[in-house]
Amino acid sequence: MPLLAVGSVALDSLETPFGRREDVLGGSASYFSVCASFFGPTRMVAVVGEDFPEEHVRYFGSRAIDLAGLVRRPGRTFRWKGRYEFDLNTAHTLDTQLNVFAEFRPELPAHYRDSEYVFLGNIDPDLQRTVLDQVRAPRFVACDTMNFWISSKREALLKTLKRVDLLFVNDAEARQLAEEHNVVKAARRILSFGPRAVVVKRGEYGALYFSGDEVFAASAYPLPAVFDPTGAGDSFAGGFMGYLARCRREDHATMRRAIVLGSVLASFTVEQFSLRSRRWSGTVRIA
Amino acid sequence: MPLLAVGSVALDSLETPFGRREDVLGGSASYFSVCASFFGPTRMVAVVGEDFPEEHVRYFGSRAIDLAGLVRRPGRTFRWKGRYEFDLNTAHTLDTQLNVFAEFRPELPAHYRDSEYVFLGNIDPDLQRTVLDQVRAPRFVACDTMNFWISSKREALLKTLKRVDLLFVNDAEARQLAEEHNVVKAARRILSFGPRAVVVKRGEYGALYFSGDEVFAASAYPLPAVFDPTGAGDSFAGGFMGYLARCRREDHATMRRAIVLGSVLASFTVEQFSLRSRRWSGTVRIA
Repeated sequence: MPLLAVGSVALDSLETPFGRREDVLGGSASYFSVCASFFGPTRMVAVVGEDFPEEHVRYFGSRAIDLAGLVRRPGRTFRWKGRYEFDLNTAHTLDTQLNVFAEFRPELPAHYRDSEYVFLGNIDPDLQRTVLDQVRAPRFVACDTMNFWISSKREALLKTLKRVDLLFVNDAEARQLAEEHNVVKAARRILSFGPRAVVVKRGEYGALYFSGDEVFAASAYPLPAVFDPTGAGDSFAGGFMGYLARCRREDHATMRRAIVLGSVLASFTVEQFSLRSRRWSGTVRIA
Repeated sequence: MPLLAVGSVALDSLETPFGRREDVLGGSASYFSVCASFFGPTRMVAVVGEDFPEEHVRYFGSRAIDLAGLVRRPGRTFRWKGRYEFDLNTAHTLDTQLNVFAEFRPELPAHYRDSEYVFLGNIDPDLQRTVLDQVRAPRFVACDTMNFWISSKREALLKTLKRVDLLFVNDAEARQLAEEHNVVKAARRILSFGPRAVVVKRGEYGALYFSGDEVFAASAYPLPAVFDPTGAGDSFAGGFMGYLARCRREDHATMRRAIVLGSVLASFTVEQFSLRSRRWSGTVRIA
């Protein structure tokens, strides 16, 4: 079943201990959609500016991503500039230029409205709900968020959480949202906010999945070389949701395989800057 | 087969965000032996002072630990005082009093010399080798160490590593010993020093096992309450080596189960201060 993803498409400038890149393809919707596209059709909802390189649009197209919802607006594309220290676990934002993203009001093309699987990338929680309002009968909705929304739009986020099936957060976000230091207790508290599942992403250490009394821990693939962690979380979500949408099942075994596949896709992403490495030209075959 | 363990028996004073304890049972040989004792006979080599409470000796005895190698010397027992911050991942040493441990020269009782499985706890690497010298035909030798020995007795440690099958280290120790930041590369470098396997312990995130081209990642059991991480690493080693000695096999499948069992024992340890909780009165049944 087609999977719908809303989020940012950005031009990132990155500094890591291993090098720098200027204005490379980034954004939550980019990483998510490219990773999900290995599993089946993916529909993107995002905005770019006049300066967004056509080659990136062609690249999305080459991955069979439906771009009817990718709109181009007058102005510049959303830009994010970040730096990673030696441990690569924490991003330090150096500069954020929202540009056309500031006025982003996601509108779904008519044929997107029958999407059964929906990923609400890290955008304003009020906008996340306007996307949901436009989907006729969502079967499984996953959502991402960040510290900024947890602190500045907590009530709006809690409203969104009542309508989603699964929340993706990292350790720090889980603690902040639940106001609870222990990650297991924090996840249980978040489940009481509405979602029936929570995935806590822990970077190089993997991910924890919580649903009801179930806990599933997946290790990240141990990599001898990590160049750029940008997009790892959205890649995880893309692999996870892509697999779920392809299986059209949400039983425990499918969820667990989805977590492992999310980890695999994230491991590909962090091996290089941006997207578009040789890794991304293959296909994923699943028994 | 009986398993031999050499290390410290200590009285620990601990501060965590959840409370304090004074002069509780601690030390690498204590945690290791109690955890290994769930799987089979364990022989302890350690030293205590005149002030070491008889109740702890009786407790070791109740776990069927062979105490022929636990000697009592004039003077006070080794004492360690440490504090953990809120994230519980890093111990800050507040005070170390070696006392009788300063003159520790491990001597094996005659009947210990046929031990096939040997754990060299975190002591001076020169002493670790004197223990090995006294074992007739060790079949599988595992070793622990710490930052102090890596920096102050590197050459002695490298000599020891040439004679061990497996090294237990945490992330930071692996990086320091290998002089390499990436943990995967660090582990490979350590394998080149002699051991045929390395276990990198990552606290609440679990452990990575490296041997040849094989990598196995085990998650730690996600705990809703962690009170005191002291002894987690030695508990892991105890569960691991206890299981190995019981199976008397070192194939991949056995090693992997040993890692998972090591994680389970470590998870019991961190749920309370010191040893001796109710958890420790049960038995481990393995299919």
